Amino acid sequence: MNSDRDIDFYLDFTSPYAYLASTQIEALAAMHGHSVVWRPFLIGATFKITGRKALIQHPLVWEYSLHDVQRSARLLGQSITIPVKFPILSVKPGRLFYYFQERDGDQRMAKKFASAAFHSYFVEQKDITDNQVLGQIGVAFGVDEAQVGEIVKSTVMKARFKAEVDAAMERKVFGAPTFIVKNEMFWGVDKLGQLGKWLETGGW
Amino acid sequence: MNSDRDIDFYLDFTSPYAYLASTQIEALAAMHGHSVVWRPFLIGATFKITGRKALIQHPLVWEYSLHDVQRSARLLGQSITIPVKFPILSVKPGRLFYYFQERDGDQRMAKKFASAAFHSYFVEQKDITDNQVLGQIGVAFGVDEAQVGEIVKSTVMKARFKAEVDAAMERKVFGAPTFIVKNEMFWGVDKLGQLGKWLETGGW
Repeated sequence: MNSDRDIDFYLDFTSPYAYLASTQIEALAAMHGHSVVWRPFLIGATFKITGRKALIQHPLVWEYSLHDVQRSARLLGQSITIPVKFPILSVKPGRLFYYFQERDGDQRMAKKFASAAFHSYFVEQKDITDNQVLGQIGVAFGVDEAQVGEIVKSTVMKARFKAEVDAAMERKVFGAPTFIVKNEMFWGVDKLGQLGKWLETGGW
Repeated sequence: MNSDRDIDFYLDFTSPYAYLASTQIEALAAMHGHSVVWRPFLIGATFKITGRKALIQHPLVWEYSLHDVQRSARLLGQSITIPVKFPILSVKPGRLFYYFQERDGDQRMAKKFASAAFHSYFVEQKDITDNQVLGQIGVAFGVDEAQVGEIVKSTVMKARFKAEVDAAMERKVFGAPTFIVKNEMFWGVDKLGQLGKWLETGGW
């Protein structure tokens, strides 16, 4: 489904930096005539390969990151709070995302769902691993809590999401957010500037 | 020795990202009427506290970093090659840096030595843990190989450098490059853009 004008945007719903990136990437891409393919995956799955750990597990680093996330959010005109329940295993919103994509044949609603899930988690501090919360979000996208329950435990959507996580690892994605345009990878929300320059110039 | 207009620039001579930052920070600071205090330290010493490891120890991450370092260098008009002997324990250039600072009472020559050491390591791929190499660099700064040998093993300079490393850790510095301006910390060469905006606006 990719074209040379597409940017793959790898995200994990538990990543505050991926949330910040999600508020910027569409406008950045559009400015340079590109479109974005959102690709939720599980950053935790990559830790087994890289030996990395979550930021929160590193003293000093996490303290800095808490400050940095707020500072970056303010600069971007966004608000963010790290929820009490953090990090989360984001399989449920991940499976729902691909469900909407499959159902609709495009990502229009899936992206809106992803933005709503990010907002629910990082702005409203709701637990987006909870079927009731996901049902409340889902209503606007045509699924209620009961349907959410079915979707997130369905064999098909489990396999679908796992295939996406595996594909991300095959492309050597190891962090979130990660952006790939024509095999050129940029890791981190702090790379949005370089990514924009890359799109503008065609690379250097 | 710090004033509110000073930016503390924490570097380790083994860090390719600190090298790239060293080619930019003086001009960036000057543009906004700030000066820079260079502070060589040992990133490895912080790993014991944070539980982090060197980039080279993480599969996939290191592969990306090798590519990213080159891409960032090209954008900055710099050239860089990761030396065969990498990483290094950079105590010797660290001690020499503070020796020049102590000797002169300011950082003018010490900064030039640091830039020369970075260039020797990352452009000429010379081993800057070798007294002969450091002696070749040192000549322009008034020390020959024999003096280098004395300085890097002197109790005074060992203690001086250790105190700097300890002070960096007390300020919760955990990575290189790190910039601190009036207690506001920015980590990573990718933060130079935000740092510049911070200097320009006085913060947000």
